[in-house]
Amino acid sequence: MAKNTDNQKVRLGFTGVGGRGAHLLERCLDMNDVDVLTVCDIQERHCQRAWKEVVESGRPEPKIYEDHGQMVKRDDLDGVVIATPWESHISMAITAMEADKFVGLEVGPANSVEECWELVRTAEETGSHCMLLENCCYYRDCMAVLNMVRQGIFGELVHCRCGYGHDLREPIITGSETALNQKDGRNYRGLHNEKRNGDLYPTHGIGPMAKCLNVNSGNRFVSLTSTASKSRGLDDWAENNLEPNHPSYNVDWSIGDIVTTVLKCANGETVIVNHDVSLPRPYSNMYHVQGTNGIWKRTFESIDHSEENPGLTLESSIYLEKKSSGHEWESFDTYQTNHDNPVWEEYLEMGRKAGHGGIDHLVLRDYVMSVKRGEHPPIDVYDAATWMVISPLSERSIALGNEPVAFPDFTNGAWMNNDPKFGLLGDDLPEHL
Amino acid sequence: MAKNTDNQKVRLGFTGVGGRGAHLLERCLDMNDVDVLTVCDIQERHCQRAWKEVVESGRPEPKIYEDHGQMVKRDDLDGVVIATPWESHISMAITAMEADKFVGLEVGPANSVEECWELVRTAEETGSHCMLLENCCYYRDCMAVLNMVRQGIFGELVHCRCGYGHDLREPIITGSETALNQKDGRNYRGLHNEKRNGDLYPTHGIGPMAKCLNVNSGNRFVSLTSTASKSRGLDDWAENNLEPNHPSYNVDWSIGDIVTTVLKCANGETVIVNHDVSLPRPYSNMYHVQGTNGIWKRTFESIDHSEENPGLTLESSIYLEKKSSGHEWESFDTYQTNHDNPVWEEYLEMGRKAGHGGIDHLVLRDYVMSVKRGEHPPIDVYDAATWMVISPLSERSIALGNEPVAFPDFTNGAWMNNDPKFGLLGDDLPEHL
Repeated sequence: MAKNTDNQKVRLGFTGVGGRGAHLLERCLDMNDVDVLTVCDIQERHCQRAWKEVVESGRPEPKIYEDHGQMVKRDDLDGVVIATPWESHISMAITAMEADKFVGLEVGPANSVEECWELVRTAEETGSHCMLLENCCYYRDCMAVLNMVRQGIFGELVHCRCGYGHDLREPIITGSETALNQKDGRNYRGLHNEKRNGDLYPTHGIGPMAKCLNVNSGNRFVSLTSTASKSRGLDDWAENNLEPNHPSYNVDWSIGDIVTTVLKCANGETVIVNHDVSLPRPYSNMYHVQGTNGIWKRTFESIDHSEENPGLTLESSIYLEKKSSGHEWESFDTYQTNHDNPVWEEYLEMGRKAGHGGIDHLVLRDYVMSVKRGEHPPIDVYDAATWMVISPLSERSIALGNEPVAFPDFTNGAWMNNDPKFGLLGDDLPEHL
Repeated sequence: MAKNTDNQKVRLGFTGVGGRGAHLLERCLDMNDVDVLTVCDIQERHCQRAWKEVVESGRPEPKIYEDHGQMVKRDDLDGVVIATPWESHISMAITAMEADKFVGLEVGPANSVEECWELVRTAEETGSHCMLLENCCYYRDCMAVLNMVRQGIFGELVHCRCGYGHDLREPIITGSETALNQKDGRNYRGLHNEKRNGDLYPTHGIGPMAKCLNVNSGNRFVSLTSTASKSRGLDDWAENNLEPNHPSYNVDWSIGDIVTTVLKCANGETVIVNHDVSLPRPYSNMYHVQGTNGIWKRTFESIDHSEENPGLTLESSIYLEKKSSGHEWESFDTYQTNHDNPVWEEYLEMGRKAGHGGIDHLVLRDYVMSVKRGEHPPIDVYDAATWMVISPLSERSIALGNEPVAFPDFTNGAWMNNDPKFGLLGDDLPEHL
């Protein structure tokens, strides 16, 4: 892998430039220290649009690829960002690492436990890195809570909760124009929800909680149980919104509407993770951190998609022993100000950029800086494997009647000695905008 | 059992007149149609205080008993209210039913699966009734939500959550003056938390959710898994608040700080139940009801213990498809008004009475009316067994490494045909105050 210094530019290729990939590309084109040399997609219109975006940003024309394997062979790319359909994420990351590229991998579920092992083995054998682009780790409140956890303000952590509560019935059932794998009008989301029963989107929830719990750096997940409710929400939506001759009208959905996974950690903490995408509900990540000295929980989240003022409103509540009065919740607002992560202070000074209220920008900044320096990223291949493997482990537990399932130790014991890295890069951030 | 008509008085005996029992006695002394003939406690001072309360209410002197078995043999008692230490609840209920008494049983955990079976068998063999005095079923918001569930406003129910989040570190560790079983200065709460690891107080959470889910009347629990976090909260409190020579300073607590139980229902719904009494936190029952058409959750609860204005403040949020706008939570307030249960409308007209904001009064009214009429109570012996057995089942799952555990069907198949009864007695309520 070509090594750059801080003053050099990072040369990136993008595989998968449909909906999410196009957005990640846009965020990177905002950065002066990023060059985009290649774009790759099996749908030509996505490539054309991406090509146009790059050129309009004032950069040289990128080369267009249809084949990811061909693209990653180039020796002038430092990193490759992958935002393809879920089922190809890990195999494409492996291909890129084998070609000595620093992977930035969009989130999603693993297909199997074995492919997570292969992801880790490939990183270890090639010396390449894979950073999971889990933007939710960069929520302003989650990063402040992480600071507070590290300062011992919550005492000894005991329990966390999180999840992905997002009414996705329409996109699951009818797909979208950016869908890559179209089957009966549905995209990859529809395909996975039709065929699989488990937590298909665990990383947005577990990411920030795993960082608070020092998973893979002093702690690890040792087992889980997973329980699925019946599947009704998707059928119900289809019946109320589609004509009977629509190809998705009579799909036999496998996914339970609510999947509840309970994880146990080596250090004795437990985590509840919920997958909840098939029922009408406001968005929520259900974050909750609880220790011997207090408790914090996200209480409200609202995304503003407007052009003029895009962003995210987050509200949360805290109760700390001997600080909060009368066994009553307090607003987190003043704690937020007092415990902001330096990356957020800097980011707010620069003025907000679009993309889930800044978190897309911040995760890509950490990725770009890690590539530039050839450094181990703050969300690494072990995190990627550990968080994405929750999906097949959850399926396994559900298939076996909610039986407890052992969690693989992808670090092979290194978790006992690893130091935490995430959220500590604040003062390393350069002037980049 | 002596049968009364609505115009007659109900003749009650009370076993266990310490803290909670004394409060239940007070609430019954507020009722014109209740006579209290006997009080029973192994601590004489409790009996003396109870005796005084009865006499001061203008009623004849009650007879004092030390022995529950002796007391229940009297043939002039219609019902017996039991509020003794947890471990004796079910065996005392059995003794009273064998003596043909209509039991009002305070909540708590069962000791074993087998004693729950014995409770049910005794009721079936004797024809006696046992009503579990689960006051939380009578929360104003829960009863309105139950009405809405029955009207189909939430669509088909899919998932519920609930629990008991109550910082009880001090009473668990140091006991209280009303404790019956004192051991090293701790009371029964301390004893169970020292010796058992499971959900030791499931009924406040599961009661209202079970009624929404029609458990035992069209539905039933079929299995559960239970997972306990490490035990740190009680140790931590003891270390920070007790002298090292205090008898509770070095207790080896068995109870995990957070116990998470996930139940599966015959009709495919899932329920998360949390037990959370050993960490600093505001009170919460964590109620959450979710269906194909919307979601409701309790968001805030605050108990005012003041003399002048005792009561409970409850806040909750709701999101209903096609009613709530923009994927945002709404306040439950207007729904509360529109869907109040008739018992609450009547209760509010009468003016609030003390005791958890009315719920203690309402559960005892249903008990008294059921006794008076010799009717099957709205929270019956099958509910008592089903809700209380969660404790030993949870212990079993935890002991076996979170293995799924089958749930007994105490109704022996009758759940498929039973009609719901709870919350339907509103217009039967007499003028009683």
